Amino acid sequence: MNEFDYIDKYFKPLTNEFAGNLKNDAAIFNQNSSLDLIISTDTLAEGVHFFGDEDPVDIAKKSLRVNLSDMAAMGAKPIFYNLSLSIPKDKAQQFIPKFAKGLQDDQKIFDIKLIGGDLTSSIKHINITITIFGNTSRGKSIPRDGAQIGDWLYVSGILGLSKIGLDNINSSLREFKEAKNKYLLPIPRIELGVSLKNIANSMIDISDGLIQDSTHLARNSKLSVELNLSKIPVPNLNKIDKKQILNSALYGGDDYELLFSCDPVHEKFLKKLSSKINLKLTKIGVFKELKKDFLYFKNNLTKPKESYLHF
Amino acid sequence: MNEFDYIDKYFKPLTNEFAGNLKNDAAIFNQNSSLDLIISTDTLAEGVHFFGDEDPVDIAKKSLRVNLSDMAAMGAKPIFYNLSLSIPKDKAQQFIPKFAKGLQDDQKIFDIKLIGGDLTSSIKHINITITIFGNTSRGKSIPRDGAQIGDWLYVSGILGLSKIGLDNINSSLREFKEAKNKYLLPIPRIELGVSLKNIANSMIDISDGLIQDSTHLARNSKLSVELNLSKIPVPNLNKIDKKQILNSALYGGDDYELLFSCDPVHEKFLKKLSSKINLKLTKIGVFKELKKDFLYFKNNLTKPKESYLHF
Repeated sequence: MNEFDYIDKYFKPLTNEFAGNLKNDAAIFNQNSSLDLIISTDTLAEGVHFFGDEDPVDIAKKSLRVNLSDMAAMGAKPIFYNLSLSIPKDKAQQFIPKFAKGLQDDQKIFDIKLIGGDLTSSIKHINITITIFGNTSRGKSIPRDGAQIGDWLYVSGILGLSKIGLDNINSSLREFKEAKNKYLLPIPRIELGVSLKNIANSMIDISDGLIQDSTHLARNSKLSVELNLSKIPVPNLNKIDKKQILNSALYGGDDYELLFSCDPVHEKFLKKLSSKINLKLTKIGVFKELKKDFLYFKNNLTKPKESYLHF
Repeated sequence: MNEFDYIDKYFKPLTNEFAGNLKNDAAIFNQNSSLDLIISTDTLAEGVHFFGDEDPVDIAKKSLRVNLSDMAAMGAKPIFYNLSLSIPKDKAQQFIPKFAKGLQDDQKIFDIKLIGGDLTSSIKHINITITIFGNTSRGKSIPRDGAQIGDWLYVSGILGLSKIGLDNINSSLREFKEAKNKYLLPIPRIELGVSLKNIANSMIDISDGLIQDSTHLARNSKLSVELNLSKIPVPNLNKIDKKQILNSALYGGDDYELLFSCDPVHEKFLKKLSSKINLKLTKIGVFKELKKDFLYFKNNLTKPKESYLHF
């Protein structure tokens, strides 16, 4: 099979009307000007973001989900995506059918379709780049730089599971099943993101770890954030000591929970929302006037460490 | 430097207002609904689309230009682009500043800016994915499937130069200078593309070679195209025999000239346009009712060969 055969057989069935059956050089999209189009890109490189020996179904889902999470972080409703896949010739035949199956499964779950992209060979490693598109009412997306003095910092779900799953990816212990699943198949918090439209002043999804992403909100908002370590929602696991669990929550990436700031007046709304969408929302800090550091720990003399950096 | 430093220093200066200083998880764009947004993606993988030892300035320009060419092929005006760069850690420091310089130079020439993207490390090879955006009046982009029976097939410029440039990339002969330049720095035919808005019935840019791309137009339009080999515009080069030059024109990729079909009634308009924009436009074939093959040669019993395929 050549690239056109792969595209026809595996990718064309994933497209919507904007793709025009992938017949053209480009997709064509028209949007009502009362909406903003939200555009974001995340790349997954083999050996960096994934090992390469995972099930291609899961690699596809994770690629899509980390991008969906960026839409959630903007408070945007995902509408479609664009895919570029570079893959060594000798892996294509095994990989592409399963990869397309993974996309198809998640397209149904998240009500999203493919509009186009590129399929090329590569020399040695797989590279997956997805550009995702979503929309919000005009001017209603949630930025990273809008935190206000006195805003509470909230986080969704449980933190650290993904890093623990990664550290124990080859363990067959039942205790690590949830963690491994969270690492392989994170859940983009789309419903939460959209629901925070008129509530959150700033928001980000946790891809680089709580410390780094909280610092992003604080730095961009030109404030300091005081983090209450005792409030961080962490998993209950017997095989790992508490300090290591907390470290995973603070510095481990890939959790894809939403981290947002809002006025304390919304506390009741958030309690109701939490129970409605069945997702824990925890107040873990507060924004204050900018001091020496963008982020510090409440009642604690330890300083945050550095998180994962690509270079 | 970590990825945030690279982004701040080299990529933020390339952005426009939709990028919001790259502070958010996504770009935010609002478009008048009288326009269509045209979206296309092209990836360049090291070792496949480029050697890796070229000047990063040129690699950047080529990455952008092949994408600009896709906008030209739709008859769209390019407006901005999104970039994902995956690069091994040990190459980043040398590569990124020059790569950003190449983007900056071409951004000025083509009046286009960056809106966002992703910067990640990779294990061994560089991978560059650009998603480009353009616009047309609503419903006015030029498809691949619109050729009509009796349409003439036109091509811009000279064909085969890029393949000859690639084959002689290490030659220092003056005769190959233009060809090497065409391979390294193709010229997207944007002005031509936009000018064909109410003229061309179908259009594509030649990235895979004249034969393959003519076949795309014919197959998508469910017609046959009869190609007149004696009319193909080829370069005058003394060091290469005529047959090899014609082969480069037919099967060599990377020319990024526009190939389009239109009613013969537009012949005069095209002559004027050609002289106005100082670009050769040559009639090289005609569309006919679908016969056995999508493409055949006029007065010639040879059959077209296969063009470059990724898999």
